[in-house]
Amino acid sequence: MKIALLAFTMLYFYHCRCAAAHENSPLGLHYAMFLPTINKQATPEQKKKWLPLAENYKMIGTYAQTELGHGTFIRGLETTATYDPKTKEFILDSPTLTSKKYWPGCLGKTSNHCVVMAQLYTQGKSHGPHMFMVQIRSMEDHSVLPGIEVGVIGNKFGYGTNDNGFLSFDKLRIPRENMLMRYSQVHEDGTYVKPQNAKLAYGSMVLIRSSIVSDAARGLAQACVISIRYSAVRRQTEAYPGGEEPQILDYQTQQYRLFPLLASAYSLQLAGKYVFNTYLEVNDQIEKGNLESMPELHALSAGLKAFSTYEASAGIEVCRICCGGHGYSQASGLPKIYVDVVPGCTYEGENTVMMLQTARYLMKCYSRAKQGQKLPGFVQYIGQNLNKKSCMSEEVALGCLVMAYEHRAARLVEAAAMRMQSLIQGGKKQHEAWNGSSVQLFWAAKAHCHLFCVKNFVDAIQAKSLSSKTVTVMKSVCQLYGVHGILENLGEFMQDGFFSGEQVGYLQRKMLALFENIRPNAVALVDAFDYPDMVLGSCLGRYDGQVYQALYDYAKSAPMNQTEIHSTYYKHLKPLINPETTSDAMQFAKL
Amino acid sequence: MKIALLAFTMLYFYHCRCAAAHENSPLGLHYAMFLPTINKQATPEQKKKWLPLAENYKMIGTYAQTELGHGTFIRGLETTATYDPKTKEFILDSPTLTSKKYWPGCLGKTSNHCVVMAQLYTQGKSHGPHMFMVQIRSMEDHSVLPGIEVGVIGNKFGYGTNDNGFLSFDKLRIPRENMLMRYSQVHEDGTYVKPQNAKLAYGSMVLIRSSIVSDAARGLAQACVISIRYSAVRRQTEAYPGGEEPQILDYQTQQYRLFPLLASAYSLQLAGKYVFNTYLEVNDQIEKGNLESMPELHALSAGLKAFSTYEASAGIEVCRICCGGHGYSQASGLPKIYVDVVPGCTYEGENTVMMLQTARYLMKCYSRAKQGQKLPGFVQYIGQNLNKKSCMSEEVALGCLVMAYEHRAARLVEAAAMRMQSLIQGGKKQHEAWNGSSVQLFWAAKAHCHLFCVKNFVDAIQAKSLSSKTVTVMKSVCQLYGVHGILENLGEFMQDGFFSGEQVGYLQRKMLALFENIRPNAVALVDAFDYPDMVLGSCLGRYDGQVYQALYDYAKSAPMNQTEIHSTYYKHLKPLINPETTSDAMQFAKL
Repeated sequence: MKIALLAFTMLYFYHCRCAAAHENSPLGLHYAMFLPTINKQATPEQKKKWLPLAENYKMIGTYAQTELGHGTFIRGLETTATYDPKTKEFILDSPTLTSKKYWPGCLGKTSNHCVVMAQLYTQGKSHGPHMFMVQIRSMEDHSVLPGIEVGVIGNKFGYGTNDNGFLSFDKLRIPRENMLMRYSQVHEDGTYVKPQNAKLAYGSMVLIRSSIVSDAARGLAQACVISIRYSAVRRQTEAYPGGEEPQILDYQTQQYRLFPLLASAYSLQLAGKYVFNTYLEVNDQIEKGNLESMPELHALSAGLKAFSTYEASAGIEVCRICCGGHGYSQASGLPKIYVDVVPGCTYEGENTVMMLQTARYLMKCYSRAKQGQKLPGFVQYIGQNLNKKSCMSEEVALGCLVMAYEHRAARLVEAAAMRMQSLIQGGKKQHEAWNGSSVQLFWAAKAHCHLFCVKNFVDAIQAKSLSSKTVTVMKSVCQLYGVHGILENLGEFMQDGFFSGEQVGYLQRKMLALFENIRPNAVALVDAFDYPDMVLGSCLGRYDGQVYQALYDYAKSAPMNQTEIHSTYYKHLKPLINPETTSDAMQFAKL
Repeated sequence: MKIALLAFTMLYFYHCRCAAAHENSPLGLHYAMFLPTINKQATPEQKKKWLPLAENYKMIGTYAQTELGHGTFIRGLETTATYDPKTKEFILDSPTLTSKKYWPGCLGKTSNHCVVMAQLYTQGKSHGPHMFMVQIRSMEDHSVLPGIEVGVIGNKFGYGTNDNGFLSFDKLRIPRENMLMRYSQVHEDGTYVKPQNAKLAYGSMVLIRSSIVSDAARGLAQACVISIRYSAVRRQTEAYPGGEEPQILDYQTQQYRLFPLLASAYSLQLAGKYVFNTYLEVNDQIEKGNLESMPELHALSAGLKAFSTYEASAGIEVCRICCGGHGYSQASGLPKIYVDVVPGCTYEGENTVMMLQTARYLMKCYSRAKQGQKLPGFVQYIGQNLNKKSCMSEEVALGCLVMAYEHRAARLVEAAAMRMQSLIQGGKKQHEAWNGSSVQLFWAAKAHCHLFCVKNFVDAIQAKSLSSKTVTVMKSVCQLYGVHGILENLGEFMQDGFFSGEQVGYLQRKMLALFENIRPNAVALVDAFDYPDMVLGSCLGRYDGQVYQALYDYAKSAPMNQTEIHSTYYKHLKPLINPETTSDAMQFAKL
């Protein structure tokens, strides 16, 4: 059932993304959050009541958690749900300005229901944030119900097609049965029953974060398709006096900017796939209450969510800038991809907080390793011997790349742990030491995620199912991902003398050689992502390469070109050009 | 006269920026390009004819150079201006799709005149790009004149208030007198007279690029104001269980992201000021044909234009993301600042090309240094002895910082030169060797610009006019700029063993200590930029700190909130919710 719903949701998103690529549906969260939340958090009776209504678009819903003054830190939420045993109702209230719900998608104009996260109070005690089903608009005429204030939050960087909204409650009463009670309950008399395991919510978070990794990877991949195809069409600047203007993809500097991003796009896609598949594998265990594999997956998904959205966002902008001036036109399709991906850095957990969650897990692993305990799978590198040198030679073996990333991550994890320790020994409290080490903790978490992406890429191309030709091409891409990542973060690999200056020379020459290696396959490597023109929505990234005709057609079709003379001429320009007709305007112009 | 015009232009821009901050005026290029071009490129007779008309808004003009298929490489332009001695006219023509003018600001709907850059042909010979005054719309009724196609190019990432346009000519005839003939002429019989010095155009380019450096710096400074003020208001995540939620500016990771950008904003403002003042100083010499100081200034302004726009654009986005979810709202003011600054990476010379122009100058300097010649002022570091170690100690003296940046730049210049040399020795042609070295040339140019920014910052705080209190505060900011820049590019400082691992430790600890140092002054340091709320246009960056009320007011004022029920409800949602009224819609929903 759950998997079926998941499949349905994925299918819906896939179709949505094709029908209106990079536009956010005002029903998106009905599928992505409202239905899954009912499925995961409601009792069987609640599901029986709500699911048919929601699946048949009677109830159209979303999920409201973030408030004006409160985001990633859920315990800080201010919206209250106070149980009144006399009437067997909860009283939902927004006691302050900062408690107003702000940002939830599909909320401002579309939804008639909403799952609201609110601080539960019963029998005079607070029990932290819980979920409540709240009807906000009439199902008859869509009017806003009494006790509720709801509207859109206004213009955003992107998400123009989504009615992100605000919502507040003025002592709104809802039936006791509207609390989502699968895991925790409030009895009729007000008795609170807490969930058996408070960490059950981790599952949904892992799922959402792993889907963000894939979203980010897709955005970067599409940007690479556009920019690399365009760079094979665009010609600029004669290479020598009188020579032909080369395709800009033949410039080494263009390869330097685009090919590592192409490699990142492959790497992040593989990483997203891994986390999602691992989630599916451990999902059944989670439902059974077996949370053993969760901490590692949770830490990985939090860090990768941050790592991938940072990398992809910045990379998409590089792809856009690599298209020169034309990249700035909406005709390139790239601005929309960017504004679609970049909010992933802040939603579903602010990225710094995510990285520090990963770091917290790494610190636990480090302390376990120091106590001689064996660590699970992928984190076994932590606590390893740091007194070694890189095996890197001129050929740049994949094994030496992985070893380099392991060494760097192990060293940065240890450095962060040592900093923590020295601050505590110097008299700082635990939370002060944590804050005073958090830049280094951030570096450690980033290095951990980077290592994962490199290792997972290497594992993927060593899978037996690939043809030898594919392996040959993909090995270059994988090597470039590893080499470029080292050169971009070189200090972290050199600070302890792990790499010699000579070895750095190998890597630099290898990177330039890999550019030449990849160049003949570059267009094929982006074609392989198989995004149709309709999904790319780009004049520059067209499969047929007719970019200039497409740009010209785009310009011609602009609404402002439907009249020869714009209305502002009569209002503003004419009085300037022919001031005798309007002396006031002349006065203005002379100011 | 010229300086007066410059002052006028600056004043206009200043007012414009206050009246509609981050919005691009459709008369902007009339002041920034059209009037200055007439002033610089027209003969006295032409000025006498055109300036009064342009200054009194009869002629409203812009400057059209970029074409659909041609940008930074001006010699590649395809628009032709062929002289016909029989009628004493030029025939302007757009022979191909790619020759259409595309992108010029203020062109699509506003301008009635245009200075057009076109390939001059006379007496059967081509003489390269020249400028022509072309009337494109009637001064009576603004209708488009025969032989001309003009319109807007459609939506862009930003610049929504500017009518960037396209323009093409169908064998349009204009009088011979419409060629801007101050420096080169076509006589009545078609004889071409070339300019005395082809590099006279450099002056305007330096001016424009130095103003872009200042624009970028201003954008970054404004983003820092918004993000740092908001970070002092926003509280998030209790530091320890039950503790108060700290101002997010107290998190080390937030300081790590914002304080180096604050330092960059100061550094780039100082750099922009330096280049502009130097331009003014050498401007008279240029006009007299003395171009001696030009190559260094030209190289510096090209590189700094690229360096500053890259740094500022990326930095503005970091400031935005540091505001969490609210940064994504247009209410933050940050998206507009970003889309206003980031096109600076591609307009007025694509950044990679700019960096390589700087690199070309550095290579000339290197070869001169190797021949024992003395280099002018700021590039004297090139060719210095590279066999030395850093003097860096725990206190991180400014002199050791400058020395480190000099060493890095000198080494990267030499490495690029060596690569060039080895490729040529290996049988590559000059242009192949250049392309095959261009990544390293890019690194060298970037290091050169970075060095300039550090050195110029250090010089500025050592100026005698500052109070000792100011010096104390600004020294921390300057140190942070230097230290953070090293740590972000650490490999380039370590590859040859210039820094020891221990010295890197000094720098890392110093950076964290500087954060604590700067924290108490952070808000004062952004207040000092003195941007009024009206210019910032941000709910988050308000001087009074009332961010939540401002966000709520922003939401309430959204046009979509003026009705309780949006029209899409009747069109799309009602048929879904109450399908009995519309069975077709139900069919659709079941798809």
